[in-house]
Amino acid sequence: MPGQPHRVTLIPGDGVGPEVVRAARRIIEAAGVAIAWEEAEAGAAVFRRGDTSGVPRETRESIERTRTVLKGPLETPVGFGEKSANVTLRKLFETYANVRPARELPGVPTRYAGEGIDLVIVRENIEDLYAGIEHMQTPDVAQCLKVISRKGSEKVIRYAFELARREGRGRVTCATKANIMKLTEGLFKRVFEAIAPEYAADGIAADHLIIDNVAHQLAKNPAQFDVVVTTNLNGDIISDLASGLVGGLGFAPSGNYGDGVAIFEAVHGSAPKYAGKDVINPTALILSSIMMLRHLGETTAADRIEDAILVTLEEGKVMTADLARQAGGDVEHAASTSGFTDEVIANLGRQPGTVRSRSARPAEVGAAGAPVPAGAGAPPPVPHVRWTYGPDAASAVERRTIGVDLFLESWEAPETAGPALEALAGEALRLEMISTRGTMVYPPTGISPDAVGLLRARFVARAAGAEVADAEVLALLGRVAERFRWTHLEKLHVFAGEPGFTKAQGQ
Amino acid sequence: MPGQPHRVTLIPGDGVGPEVVRAARRIIEAAGVAIAWEEAEAGAAVFRRGDTSGVPRETRESIERTRTVLKGPLETPVGFGEKSANVTLRKLFETYANVRPARELPGVPTRYAGEGIDLVIVRENIEDLYAGIEHMQTPDVAQCLKVISRKGSEKVIRYAFELARREGRGRVTCATKANIMKLTEGLFKRVFEAIAPEYAADGIAADHLIIDNVAHQLAKNPAQFDVVVTTNLNGDIISDLASGLVGGLGFAPSGNYGDGVAIFEAVHGSAPKYAGKDVINPTALILSSIMMLRHLGETTAADRIEDAILVTLEEGKVMTADLARQAGGDVEHAASTSGFTDEVIANLGRQPGTVRSRSARPAEVGAAGAPVPAGAGAPPPVPHVRWTYGPDAASAVERRTIGVDLFLESWEAPETAGPALEALAGEALRLEMISTRGTMVYPPTGISPDAVGLLRARFVARAAGAEVADAEVLALLGRVAERFRWTHLEKLHVFAGEPGFTKAQGQ
Repeated sequence: MPGQPHRVTLIPGDGVGPEVVRAARRIIEAAGVAIAWEEAEAGAAVFRRGDTSGVPRETRESIERTRTVLKGPLETPVGFGEKSANVTLRKLFETYANVRPARELPGVPTRYAGEGIDLVIVRENIEDLYAGIEHMQTPDVAQCLKVISRKGSEKVIRYAFELARREGRGRVTCATKANIMKLTEGLFKRVFEAIAPEYAADGIAADHLIIDNVAHQLAKNPAQFDVVVTTNLNGDIISDLASGLVGGLGFAPSGNYGDGVAIFEAVHGSAPKYAGKDVINPTALILSSIMMLRHLGETTAADRIEDAILVTLEEGKVMTADLARQAGGDVEHAASTSGFTDEVIANLGRQPGTVRSRSARPAEVGAAGAPVPAGAGAPPPVPHVRWTYGPDAASAVERRTIGVDLFLESWEAPETAGPALEALAGEALRLEMISTRGTMVYPPTGISPDAVGLLRARFVARAAGAEVADAEVLALLGRVAERFRWTHLEKLHVFAGEPGFTKAQGQ
Repeated sequence: MPGQPHRVTLIPGDGVGPEVVRAARRIIEAAGVAIAWEEAEAGAAVFRRGDTSGVPRETRESIERTRTVLKGPLETPVGFGEKSANVTLRKLFETYANVRPARELPGVPTRYAGEGIDLVIVRENIEDLYAGIEHMQTPDVAQCLKVISRKGSEKVIRYAFELARREGRGRVTCATKANIMKLTEGLFKRVFEAIAPEYAADGIAADHLIIDNVAHQLAKNPAQFDVVVTTNLNGDIISDLASGLVGGLGFAPSGNYGDGVAIFEAVHGSAPKYAGKDVINPTALILSSIMMLRHLGETTAADRIEDAILVTLEEGKVMTADLARQAGGDVEHAASTSGFTDEVIANLGRQPGTVRSRSARPAEVGAAGAPVPAGAGAPPPVPHVRWTYGPDAASAVERRTIGVDLFLESWEAPETAGPALEALAGEALRLEMISTRGTMVYPPTGISPDAVGLLRARFVARAAGAEVADAEVLALLGRVAERFRWTHLEKLHVFAGEPGFTKAQGQ
């Protein structure tokens, strides 16, 4: 794209960040891509100046202009700021899809070498337990809310299918714990199942596996996977697992994609003990910058750089110390970060012998889903949600509130707490059950789980399935509070005829 | 232990269950252990008879007598019963420690063969997201409660250290996501850090790793691990991962330990398509039954059986089809389940050449922590909690309730919802902030995350840190309900001077 340089916000970051970022930048420039870099600050120094976000206003403004970030790792120094600046950046720009390729690299010895691992984990990046909403229910019982939305699920699942289409990948696997968490993980699975048929015509197969089985299969036969889409915490664990199969974090790139903004970074940390020593392996950030170039439509340059790094790794003439150690090479005479970078630059234009750059791989999918041709010059389309969300859609859902779950701090035995709560239920409501940590203890079931000082009492309308008005809920709270310490209340809704709550174990 | 047979409840279970259970029973009897088996029913047939728990009363009563269960896999047929009978059994008898050894076995080819993997994952088995407490907050936003208690954490963490001491293991690693979930996963980590010093004198080292790093390290260098203790979902994922490193579920035993009751089972499912064909590999259940014998104090017999199965695998003369396939053996002439069992029995009394039974391993730890001597004749001690829990301990904690988080179903923009909620806060309270999916959106921060129709409004006392009375909370609810649909309320507590709630991202 002559004449019109891309604008990219470049955040060198902390520790070894500046070195690996410099390596990537030098290679991109050597490949002839015109980028107007806007250097910007985030991380430790920013926190230490008293900015508790770690991301100053000028950096935010730069990203709003450029919409593209290449960044080194950021530190959150102990005692400054409660949240990681890496996470804050992802939240600020709603980069909802964390894309973590794990691909076998030539010259990187692993137990799985030769099996052809080439998978991508697409991790939801905004919600789930990472919303970090925690409340102590009692001095001794902590709670975190796992939040999964239909819209958030749809966005990342569409992203995963679009990625499969773009990269000519033939299968998307959804990984959840829907067998246990039928409403949250189940929602993610149901959205996946609703979207998958739209991509069947592109020849993209879709399946669902339970997350623990995915972890098991990743250890046993990782080459079977193509694209895996999953919720945030699951994705965190299995993407680091997948990195471990193909050489570790030194080779693990990542991209965080939102609607219009994308952030590219290595997965590894700031490794402060190596900072400034020109010894760190820059491969992870170089691979991340290749993802960035593809995002910017610079496919030809991306392929050239990818080929050059594949040649460099394949030949193994120039290795940083970490790789020399893994490969049984000469650690004492290992290459510096800049020496390795020089070698990659020298290899620009060469073709690797054993593997090819990603976009040179023949498409597996049909014509409709052919990969973006090299040099297409436009960023790949970012999927937007296609279903309808908002107040009108929500109002259209037939609904009833049929009761409440009330969480009480209490060490009372169910045999005494039960009748007491029944007596407090009032005329409109009745006590349906009491549970502790999800297991019903009243009415008695023969199960006597260990008490931890937190009971959940479920009250429902005496007339089965009848609506419970707010006034009745408030009156109930008033009565219960006379005798019990309550700390948390959930309404029980029926949406479109489906109960919006689960039963207790044993209920 | 002549004269006094152990009593064990034997649940054949579904699918291949009866075959693998029979194999284990035959071997135990051939080893000369006197067991009075009480055969009992659970699973598919029970569900189909209309018992929604899948575990009939007679089976519960048998377990109450025997306190020990050896069981095959159980099915939950679709349309019968909402909860798995396997889970119900664990809950019924509060088996809070799920113990999952993963050990390199001779003759089982894996990519990690020769590295000496010999680790045990101790997974908390009762609480966490598996309590299954879910509530739809809106038609499009689902929520699951992750619940972690101090008592539940203490029990399983003590169990892990006691196991390390008993088995002469030198290190216990705690795996959490405490960096993100400071109250829940953080509680588990803090309990671990409080207990670990008690075992330092036994030479048991303790460390903490973030769960995603544990997954990464399990792929890269699993032999580094000894005992890993972790919360329920983390443990689910990494224990299946660890099984995948040493040959898969066909070789994965497990024990579920509670205060007095223990349940031993294979990790694999009921594999209905192989049921009754006498082809399934019974190794996993045989290994589980060895764990059971150690639990019953039958250490000598356990060692003999372990040695016999190690000899059988090492020699590879008799292999079931699954192993023949993995090992490149003769699948067509593979051994039957009963043929393999015969071979193990024939090998009783022989010593394997390359590896030794677990208790024959020299103790790593000091005298105080020496392994239970062979034939000690008493079950290993089950750890009880040592801290104080209950109403008196809870009352002793200095506490204040300083506000509430109120969850509203609303698509309103923060700029309009914010002032409206401020106006409804009343005289005693003020609106501190609004967040969506954990990110603050009011007062404005420059972050505009995608709306999903759920807002969380945090109200606190106008007088900073002052107590908020229940009456004020109820009055607030009444006012808010006039204008907003609220669905969920959490009180904000300060316990012993520590905030019992987290800040929002950007707050």
